[in-house]
Amino acid sequence: MKGIIMIIDGMADRPLKELGDKTPLEAAQTPNMDRMAQLGVNGIMDSIRPGIRPGSDTAHLSILGYDPYQVYTGRGPFEAAGVGVEVMPGDIAFRCNFSTANEEGIITDRRAGRIREGTPELAETLNSMELEEDVEIIFKESTGHRAVLVLRGEGLSDQISDADPKHDGKKPKVVVGLDGSPEADKTARILNKVILKSYEILKDHPVNIKRMENGEPPANITLPRGAGAVPNAEPFNAKYGVKSACIAETGLIQGIALIAGMDIIEVEGATGGVDTDLNSITSSILENASLEYDFLLINIDGADEAGHDGNLKEKVEFIEKVDVVIGKVMELEDVYFILTADHSTPISVMDHTGDPVPLVIKGPDVRVDQVQEFNERAAASGGLSRIRGSDIMNILMDLMNRSTKFGA
Amino acid sequence: MKGIIMIIDGMADRPLKELGDKTPLEAAQTPNMDRMAQLGVNGIMDSIRPGIRPGSDTAHLSILGYDPYQVYTGRGPFEAAGVGVEVMPGDIAFRCNFSTANEEGIITDRRAGRIREGTPELAETLNSMELEEDVEIIFKESTGHRAVLVLRGEGLSDQISDADPKHDGKKPKVVVGLDGSPEADKTARILNKVILKSYEILKDHPVNIKRMENGEPPANITLPRGAGAVPNAEPFNAKYGVKSACIAETGLIQGIALIAGMDIIEVEGATGGVDTDLNSITSSILENASLEYDFLLINIDGADEAGHDGNLKEKVEFIEKVDVVIGKVMELEDVYFILTADHSTPISVMDHTGDPVPLVIKGPDVRVDQVQEFNERAAASGGLSRIRGSDIMNILMDLMNRSTKFGA
Repeated sequence: MKGIIMIIDGMADRPLKELGDKTPLEAAQTPNMDRMAQLGVNGIMDSIRPGIRPGSDTAHLSILGYDPYQVYTGRGPFEAAGVGVEVMPGDIAFRCNFSTANEEGIITDRRAGRIREGTPELAETLNSMELEEDVEIIFKESTGHRAVLVLRGEGLSDQISDADPKHDGKKPKVVVGLDGSPEADKTARILNKVILKSYEILKDHPVNIKRMENGEPPANITLPRGAGAVPNAEPFNAKYGVKSACIAETGLIQGIALIAGMDIIEVEGATGGVDTDLNSITSSILENASLEYDFLLINIDGADEAGHDGNLKEKVEFIEKVDVVIGKVMELEDVYFILTADHSTPISVMDHTGDPVPLVIKGPDVRVDQVQEFNERAAASGGLSRIRGSDIMNILMDLMNRSTKFGA
Repeated sequence: MKGIIMIIDGMADRPLKELGDKTPLEAAQTPNMDRMAQLGVNGIMDSIRPGIRPGSDTAHLSILGYDPYQVYTGRGPFEAAGVGVEVMPGDIAFRCNFSTANEEGIITDRRAGRIREGTPELAETLNSMELEEDVEIIFKESTGHRAVLVLRGEGLSDQISDADPKHDGKKPKVVVGLDGSPEADKTARILNKVILKSYEILKDHPVNIKRMENGEPPANITLPRGAGAVPNAEPFNAKYGVKSACIAETGLIQGIALIAGMDIIEVEGATGGVDTDLNSITSSILENASLEYDFLLINIDGADEAGHDGNLKEKVEFIEKVDVVIGKVMELEDVYFILTADHSTPISVMDHTGDPVPLVIKGPDVRVDQVQEFNERAAASGGLSRIRGSDIMNILMDLMNRSTKFGA
């Protein structure tokens, strides 16, 4: 028996006047999701707690059985893992910008003209910097002007301030320790050196010389922010006694799966947008579900993007496209298949909200209820009633007869 | 967008044979509450946890987002705040009686003949007592023979025993420290002095001389009980980023709002009983909802009183009167309006029980469900399913788009 959790990021919503007080999910034609509701047990789910507005990261942590209030130390560690840095517990990770500084050290463009090319070379050069500190420096480019920085070594802390001045026309802020500990003071000292050194070794970098020749602002300094210590998360496979993999489109979700120790399956054509290649994602799901994995976490991101954009038409259309994926995944046998969202991203709010999301579990032995449609309101009268993200893995492992009894 | 939580104290109940197995709320004619159920999203709510019998104080704390197991140190601090003492974190507060002692120091009447007049003068005199201790003494009269005492100073503790012997014919108990700490021993010593001193300075007080002339027992001693340290509750307005006010009839609820740092709006004619002036309360709600406040907490107490009295007719009639208030508050625009109770006060029990209470949220973007009536059983099939008091503020702030996202 296998387990699949498919999370349609930000799919849930609030009623909209222009849909006759229906939600996009209620308005969309979703025959496969509705059939799944008819064949399964339904409920509503709060990823964290009722009313709490989750990020996709904290919601996924909770759904995977990790307490985000314990494990979530900031976005840095998950971003770093997501772009492929093999982070280790205790590492201090940061999100960075490649930025432009002038000769007086003033930041003239926090995004270095939204640089798109050459950042791998810049990151590689930064990795060679000599600081005379007992710490390993790992830079890695992300998309555009974004990058991550990981500090690895003894006696570090994430209790430090940000360097990023947040506005152009200012110097980078001096990083300081926030809790008076020697670890924080050391980390702050190192980070100040890193920033200074980054300017020294990037200002005449071939990538930047070429940019200046083209009249583009050079990416000659890095501005780290959002220090977070990589948490010591119990490996997912050990926690649940499964072999697991993650199919996700965004680095953030991949990063969470990586920190949980899951295998990451890259899918060609997956963009994280409404233009993503859902056929390619479907093939990957069907293929990997029949491989050695007991458990697949799947995240499809386009509905969230449409929600953030406030694009109702795209959200409805994307949900209808995802419905086709569901129809194919439903045909897998000997699987407990959970379909849900990580949070609502209402068109009217254009950001995540704390409204509960619908959830359905289809599988051989569930107590099928009377719910006929898959959506926010229909699910509320289902047999699961109202559960939390942190309940899901326990329920799934129990259905899969993989959990141990607590007591006699 | 504004938020209103209206708590009809003790409104919920259990089915009664004499109502054909309906509850008072089910039997009452409540067209406005029912319309609110039709226009809103419904559920049942446990103020603290399922089956836990809440006080009105602990229930309100929980509904306002404070953990009563952390914050509730006893009734003293909330009573003291409720009668207008500006309590501060660390103060030790007590409920007191004005009592009658004879010359041998024996309490002959714990309620001093249920004294109704002159207690402000007695309290004022007590406030002038000299103890030769580094502590400030604040007495304040409450209703009838009741008063509060607040001790303010360094090194005090609420871990002390009661002075009140609980029965006439006994001497006041010697107060002792309960945990062996120097703070508790000091507080006990001070309290014993306060009791002794109260007799010295009250026995010949003009109020008492007059009482004795009239053949009434003198209020010549005070008996403190229920020591509680004033908790350091995070101010409500800072916690939620709102400007808030409370319209409540009883000192206990006002005290909770005061300790939470909310503004208190006094309403003329509010008695806390079934005879209260609901028109006056309604006017105050409508007026203050259109002022600068983002959030109003409203408590109407009569249904609880009828429940404690076991008076079914009065409870049903009072609920029907409150229904008119609801109808007017419902007409406010741009408001998320939550209607609920803090606990059940069943006619058959004549005290609070842990049964869940119905709750409905009306407002622009809620997922309206199929519930047609507002009562204990109809609400249970609503779209909110079963939530807790501690969820309410999170849900409300999320609907009002005032909460911050946890994660990315």
